Amino acid sequence: MKPVVSIIMGSTSDLPIMEKAAKFFDEMEIPFEINALSAHRTPEAVEQFAKNARDRGIKVIIAAAGMAAHLPGVIASMTPLPVIGVPINSSLEGIDALLAIVQMPPGIPVATVGINGALNAAILALQIISTNDEQLQQKLVSYKEGLKNKITKANEELAAVKYKFKTN
Amino acid sequence: MKPVVSIIMGSTSDLPIMEKAAKFFDEMEIPFEINALSAHRTPEAVEQFAKNARDRGIKVIIAAAGMAAHLPGVIASMTPLPVIGVPINSSLEGIDALLAIVQMPPGIPVATVGINGALNAAILALQIISTNDEQLQQKLVSYKEGLKNKITKANEELAAVKYKFKTN
Amino acid sequence: MKPVVSIIMGSTSDLPIMEKAAKFFDEMEIPFEINALSAHRTPEAVEQFAKNARDRGIKVIIAAAGMAAHLPGVIASMTPLPVIGVPINSSLEGIDALLAIVQMPPGIPVATVGINGALNAAILALQIISTNDEQLQQKLVSYKEGLKNKITKANEELAAVKYKFKTN
Amino acid sequence: MKPVVSIIMGSTSDLPIMEKAAKFFDEMEIPFEINALSAHRTPEAVEQFAKNARDRGIKVIIAAAGMAAHLPGVIASMTPLPVIGVPINSSLEGIDALLAIVQMPPGIPVATVGINGALNAAILALQIISTNDEQLQQKLVSYKEGLKNKITKANEELAAVKYKFKTN
Amino acid sequence: MKPVVSIIMGSTSDLPIMEKAAKFFDEMEIPFEINALSAHRTPEAVEQFAKNARDRGIKVIIAAAGMAAHLPGVIASMTPLPVIGVPINSSLEGIDALLAIVQMPPGIPVATVGINGALNAAILALQIISTNDEQLQQKLVSYKEGLKNKITKANEELAAVKYKFKTN
Amino acid sequence: MKPVVSIIMGSTSDLPIMEKAAKFFDEMEIPFEINALSAHRTPEAVEQFAKNARDRGIKVIIAAAGMAAHLPGVIASMTPLPVIGVPINSSLEGIDALLAIVQMPPGIPVATVGINGALNAAILALQIISTNDEQLQQKLVSYKEGLKNKITKANEELAAVKYKFKTN
Amino acid sequence: MKPVVSIIMGSTSDLPIMEKAAKFFDEMEIPFEINALSAHRTPEAVEQFAKNARDRGIKVIIAAAGMAAHLPGVIASMTPLPVIGVPINSSLEGIDALLAIVQMPPGIPVATVGINGALNAAILALQIISTNDEQLQQKLVSYKEGLKNKITKANEELAAVKYKFKTN
Amino acid sequence: MKPVVSIIMGSTSDLPIMEKAAKFFDEMEIPFEINALSAHRTPEAVEQFAKNARDRGIKVIIAAAGMAAHLPGVIASMTPLPVIGVPINSSLEGIDALLAIVQMPPGIPVATVGINGALNAAILALQIISTNDEQLQQKLVSYKEGLKNKITKANEELAAVKYKFKTN
Repeated sequence: MKPVVSIIMGSTSDLPIMEKAAKFFDEMEIPFEINALSAHRTPEAVEQFAKNARDRGIKVIIAAAGMAAHLPGVIASMTPLPVIGVPINSSLEGIDALLAIVQMPPGIPVATVGINGALNAAILALQIISTNDEQLQQKLVSYKEGLKNKITKANEELAAVKYKFKTN
Repeated sequence: MKPVVSIIMGSTSDLPIMEKAAKFFDEMEIPFEINALSAHRTPEAVEQFAKNARDRGIKVIIAAAGMAAHLPGVIASMTPLPVIGVPINSSLEGIDALLAIVQMPPGIPVATVGINGALNAAILALQIISTNDEQLQQKLVSYKEGLKNKITKANEELAAVKYKFKTN
Repeated sequence: MKPVVSIIMGSTSDLPIMEKAAKFFDEMEIPFEINALSAHRTPEAVEQFAKNARDRGIKVIIAAAGMAAHLPGVIASMTPLPVIGVPINSSLEGIDALLAIVQMPPGIPVATVGINGALNAAILALQIISTNDEQLQQKLVSYKEGLKNKITKANEELAAVKYKFKTN
Repeated sequence: MKPVVSIIMGSTSDLPIMEKAAKFFDEMEIPFEINALSAHRTPEAVEQFAKNARDRGIKVIIAAAGMAAHLPGVIASMTPLPVIGVPINSSLEGIDALLAIVQMPPGIPVATVGINGALNAAILALQIISTNDEQLQQKLVSYKEGLKNKITKANEELAAVKYKFKTN
Repeated sequence: MKPVVSIIMGSTSDLPIMEKAAKFFDEMEIPFEINALSAHRTPEAVEQFAKNARDRGIKVIIAAAGMAAHLPGVIASMTPLPVIGVPINSSLEGIDALLAIVQMPPGIPVATVGINGALNAAILALQIISTNDEQLQQKLVSYKEGLKNKITKANEELAAVKYKFKTN
Repeated sequence: MKPVVSIIMGSTSDLPIMEKAAKFFDEMEIPFEINALSAHRTPEAVEQFAKNARDRGIKVIIAAAGMAAHLPGVIASMTPLPVIGVPINSSLEGIDALLAIVQMPPGIPVATVGINGALNAAILALQIISTNDEQLQQKLVSYKEGLKNKITKANEELAAVKYKFKTN
Repeated sequence: MKPVVSIIMGSTSDLPIMEKAAKFFDEMEIPFEINALSAHRTPEAVEQFAKNARDRGIKVIIAAAGMAAHLPGVIASMTPLPVIGVPINSSLEGIDALLAIVQMPPGIPVATVGINGALNAAILALQIISTNDEQLQQKLVSYKEGLKNKITKANEELAAVKYKFKTN
Repeated sequence: MKPVVSIIMGSTSDLPIMEKAAKFFDEMEIPFEINALSAHRTPEAVEQFAKNARDRGIKVIIAAAGMAAHLPGVIASMTPLPVIGVPINSSLEGIDALLAIVQMPPGIPVATVGINGALNAAILALQIISTNDEQLQQKLVSYKEGLKNKITKANEELAAVKYKFKTN
């Protein structure tokens, strides 16, 4: 089983957030790998990772980092693969990480999701992979169907909440 | 020639920014379509567009909008295709559009690029499309090589700027 | 008893905040309905809701959402009824939801209240309904009289707090 | 002809923005009045205005102000009528005015629209007035139809813009 | 004993913060009064208070409020006395209250102190009162001497903290 | 003629803004002095100024500065006189100067006015001086009367602006 | 043992954050001193400190402060030594301290590190001291090697976390 | 003549701002080099530069970049030399570049100066170099003396500005 998605985080302290992505791939049965590499502390490892990812069969990279979050952009500068950036809230409500990830200069985009948006990063990765894969796309459609059912069911439970002048 | 990327903007006033994406696709020889549809003024047209895009062969959608920028998220809620969001700076330096696009709830990601980042949106689209296309990926590598040469050349010109205590 | 106000929230997790609106309508004896519908996960249900609301006798809609809060704007684009938007603080102190609701483009206003301002949304709804209803307006005047009395009474209790150089 | 909407602005320097509201009422044939009153420089005039508005037949008030924009909230505290607040951008990109208008304490809502959102304030006013007026509501529906046609037409013109790899 | 300073707060919930001002006046032996009046819920009481303050012998007013904090500005518009504004942090880290107090339009200043800065408001009030009172000014100088001693003493205690390579 | 107010600015480039204060004192016939002293470039001159101001008969100090605006706080730390701080907008819309002036630590208040609020600083200074001067206070009341007349007159001119459905 | 680095903090309440710097110097065996001095409460002590630091053999100063953080800039204005500023988060998430430290006017730089960045301030101080000291620089290289090993080891532990579709 | 300072900018478009640093080194007679290298477009060139800088005799590096400004941090991760970061204002008033530079994670500091603060970066570089060089430090003291004289002179010119009630 060769991984098609690679999750990178700047520090293992980001795992409680990033494991939502891992669990999504488990649920969707997508082989993935997960590593902690720091743009600033292990730049050589990051470079080696980024430059080999494509040849190892990786299709999409998810990179998460907080504060002055350089990891996603640094990886994006060293691979033609699409890189999804996840800003981690570890200071300033995450606005520093968001801006440090999304405001990339012309030429090197990072596909940024919301602050701590690990699940959305994983869904986006699947959307990208499934661009040419009808079957995978069908899985996604089913997954979103599930989300719809969940809120529909929650709404039904809400119907049970009683107020005197509530009519539904 | 069938389009593989679809560019949508909330208003034709966004064209001066979004045409950088169009020109990039011309340069890369990627068939694309471009339309102005408003999430708020023509919701039915947006719905019809979003729901049919996949069946028409579109692989990626680029959606640009300013202010309370709902267009990318609304489209993303109606298609399994990856949607790239471009926040347009038409108020508050574009920070309203950025937040309204990137901070999507769990389940419906939008791949957000920087404020007014039309070119990066187009490059990201190509990265996504080329995930399974070695030849396209090679084109991208060449394009980035071009960016590198441009800055290398600019640096050579900088070498010609004279200061008394400048040593290079 | 037919509802005249409809409360919509993007997720049932918003209920602890939105129930202040429900309780206000109970106190004012205004028939209302309350539902959880997601702009992004159940777009069809939102559309159906928005397009039928007027014909079902609804006069005002209150829509609450957090993060990239599209729900109020999306509903506003599909009904001529006034839509009151409540930004929910679920990230970035609620500033993302505020901007995503209030900064609507020309043509589709959302009547935005403060962050987590469920009670104010309900009062505003009543103000709108009572525009042509002298009796309802009188109820509102009495309600505000009650607020005045509450702070007047609080001030009397404050008078009992003793400081050595306090003169009142 | 008795006015049903009253437009108040904190300074006549706000007229270039607020006249979009006036023109909308002209187009919709809604009788309105327009005045410049300052919450801080003419508090008595504001009080007199706010306390008499309902008895003079006004149904909705639109109040615009910049900086520490108190005018809408001060008026709202003295009338049971719905008050629409328009934050004017005269410093800090308008974010000071937005917060000073929208973040009202529990009990006294202001229906806030976007920064410089005069047209949206007027449309919202009409939506409120037409809550009990089928004919007016029809006018609104037609007006929004017009907005839709405008963007549809703009899109047709966009179709004429030529790119080599553009397919539509 | 007639009060020379008047402390007004928008809600009695602000007392835990504002009591630092009260305690300072006790310590300095300055007669003061303290009341809860709301710009929005009890506008008439505010007006009556503001218009009579000077004639009752008040020299300075301290007004505290949170959110869209209008109280200091509204009072300032109705009295020639200097008004000190204290932004209370009850939402958005207090930045909404700060802007709603400090960004007053030309003509009606509010002397704004930092967020939750009740003690500084009281010291500033004393500085204003003592402008023509040598004795009071001397008290202030002594008070600040005390602050200096406190930090000097804290520094001495810091000297006792041991680190291996610490030299002092 | 001995000055009672002293205007200090961090740089002579602030004069175009600060001259509004000078002109106000001319209009009100208040003797003042005006100097450019930098907290960072001429700290000794600032210290000498701050420590002697009271003995020279100064009653209030107005200090203006931009960016990391330390001047008002530094002066306030060296004098028992009230110090009014004027944040100058020379970067970041003035928000850096505002925070660097208003957020003073407990013990050393600065009476902060709005960004570029030179006129309000001068009015506030007069309010402070006139605390014990009935005649000066009367001047202030007249001045504010003038502001009221100006907006009342502006409103009369506004009455002349014609719209078809305008009723006043 | 004479100190080469001096740590100054505006208040002893900053010690829990600043002790990371002290511990780093202990680990690196760099003699240092640590004091609490307030720019506003003990300006004379600050002046005396700043003016004598160089002659006492200090090479670098680390100054930490919160809110309207003037301490680093005030010290920098009185010494030719490099001053490192540490913004302390004690209000507004630390953004006020950051701006009040970093936005210094031309002529008086402060080398600013991140919010609460005490460790980075100490590392930066060592980098500055070691500019002419090969041996010290070697220590730094070893220290950073240690950081690298730590994250490499953390990554190895991460490898032990099991997911069904995880491939590494 | 071997350079002791190296100025790096992310793009030659930053030269109009960064030349203030170059001119300062000319004035102070400090040999320097200046190059345009992009963290994202020429990562290999950046790596080679950063890893060799120390061995080439460079003592301090000044790195300037805008938007998601990674250049200073990336260089800092590859050299034991102190790196001074200059946030360039090319979007969002420069706040994105400031946060992306200053909020570095523990272990890799960047000595950040104000937005567009090229001159301060150069002065800071000189302060760092002169830590062990009495003569250079003397030059700095003279330079700052010059700044003091400039503002003192400006203040003398200000004395010539006439106002009727101005006393100096």
